[in-house]
Amino acid sequence: MIEVTLIGTGRLSFNLMNEILNNKRFKLNQVFGRSKFRPKHISDDVDYIKEIKNINNSDFYLIAVSDNEIYNVSNQFDAKEGIVLHVSGNTNINVLSNHKNYGVFYPLQTFSYETNLNFREIPIIIEANNKINQKKIEKFSKIFSKKVCKMSSNERAICHLSATIANNFTNHLVFKAEQILEKNGIDKKILQPLIKETFNKLDRMTTSEAQTGPALRNDNLTIESHLRQLNESDFLNLYKEITKSIRSNEL
Amino acid sequence: MIEVTLIGTGRLSFNLMNEILNNKRFKLNQVFGRSKFRPKHISDDVDYIKEIKNINNSDFYLIAVSDNEIYNVSNQFDAKEGIVLHVSGNTNINVLSNHKNYGVFYPLQTFSYETNLNFREIPIIIEANNKINQKKIEKFSKIFSKKVCKMSSNERAICHLSATIANNFTNHLVFKAEQILEKNGIDKKILQPLIKETFNKLDRMTTSEAQTGPALRNDNLTIESHLRQLNESDFLNLYKEITKSIRSNEL
Repeated sequence: MIEVTLIGTGRLSFNLMNEILNNKRFKLNQVFGRSKFRPKHISDDVDYIKEIKNINNSDFYLIAVSDNEIYNVSNQFDAKEGIVLHVSGNTNINVLSNHKNYGVFYPLQTFSYETNLNFREIPIIIEANNKINQKKIEKFSKIFSKKVCKMSSNERAICHLSATIANNFTNHLVFKAEQILEKNGIDKKILQPLIKETFNKLDRMTTSEAQTGPALRNDNLTIESHLRQLNESDFLNLYKEITKSIRSNEL
Repeated sequence: MIEVTLIGTGRLSFNLMNEILNNKRFKLNQVFGRSKFRPKHISDDVDYIKEIKNINNSDFYLIAVSDNEIYNVSNQFDAKEGIVLHVSGNTNINVLSNHKNYGVFYPLQTFSYETNLNFREIPIIIEANNKINQKKIEKFSKIFSKKVCKMSSNERAICHLSATIANNFTNHLVFKAEQILEKNGIDKKILQPLIKETFNKLDRMTTSEAQTGPALRNDNLTIESHLRQLNESDFLNLYKEITKSIRSNEL
């Protein structure tokens, strides 16, 4: 059995904990968190520690804390022969170089407390401080997912940027679309079938093929009418910029 | 049986044609198109006409042509007692005022030639030139969908703007996210599970609850690192603007 220690208690840690607890090849050794009280999603069977000095030996340590805390946390414990992994998309592997064996385990996905994701389908981007550890981290990661990719810290950062756009930015635009409806007294639920189909389409065609709308077909009358509707709205500038971007990619 | 004539042969017309052909309460009278040759998605059983003067009497005429053609097409035929409907989100009902009976039938959805949409779930926004026609258009629309909403031309235009943002703009951002990967030699398929979950999440929570990422949590280190990666990219300005928009909505 592979012993795993989880450091951090956020959304990603919660999802990793469930994966580890539900897989007989793993033993969840400890979960470390800053909170005085055991977070409600961590069951009493789990050894929850609040002092990092109480950390004991594991095969793998997964550091799932906010990016700017990784270095601090990493320097507060001695992993001995264990492999220390951070799970961040945008953090260099070297932040863990105080350890003998270290690397990166970055699942390219958005996580929440309510979800029931199929981890087997989640791409896990890995990196290691040497070839021996790379083999070990690869083997470890393949227990979680069938999509394990080796990348440099730079390539991983590109994936993180891309994920930020595909997830955070698109979600924000849907939020703005709903906000425009609500400001005009229209129930935002009316958008739901469209949002669903927008992304279902991408199972059948590329984003280029799926692109439609006034910006793509240079329908200036519609664009001008939209701009009039957005007059004085905080979305006006963004509407112009995205329209420009759609147009420039079709030249 | 309700006789329906379709004017136009684009994506929406194609989807409407299939709905009409598959419903025993409808008879597809004619399909008018500008193309000399019968478009390949229109079967030989359908009376395809290329000259609008050959149009004959129907209960409903659905004008599914590009917005700036609606007025022209509408003025080229005499609907007599039939009800003429356009299917545009952003066109005033008055463009059809040369007819006695007219209105709007706007399905709030994105359409493609390959799709197999459940029309029953698609919101159809209707408008009519008088109360009698409104009843008739409502009854007609309810054969297509269980979500029929009456709105003014202004309210419908708000829905169209909102739909443009939720569909065209989000699709473009996913395209840009993929483009960034490809420019760096990374297979864009790595984003697929994330894109799927981004929109699956919206079945379980609101866009506000689903929002995550560096802009929301004011993670300046990550944002600066993204900006460095985007240096000289045509997406740099858009990255800044969307980040600003995410931040300003959380103030």
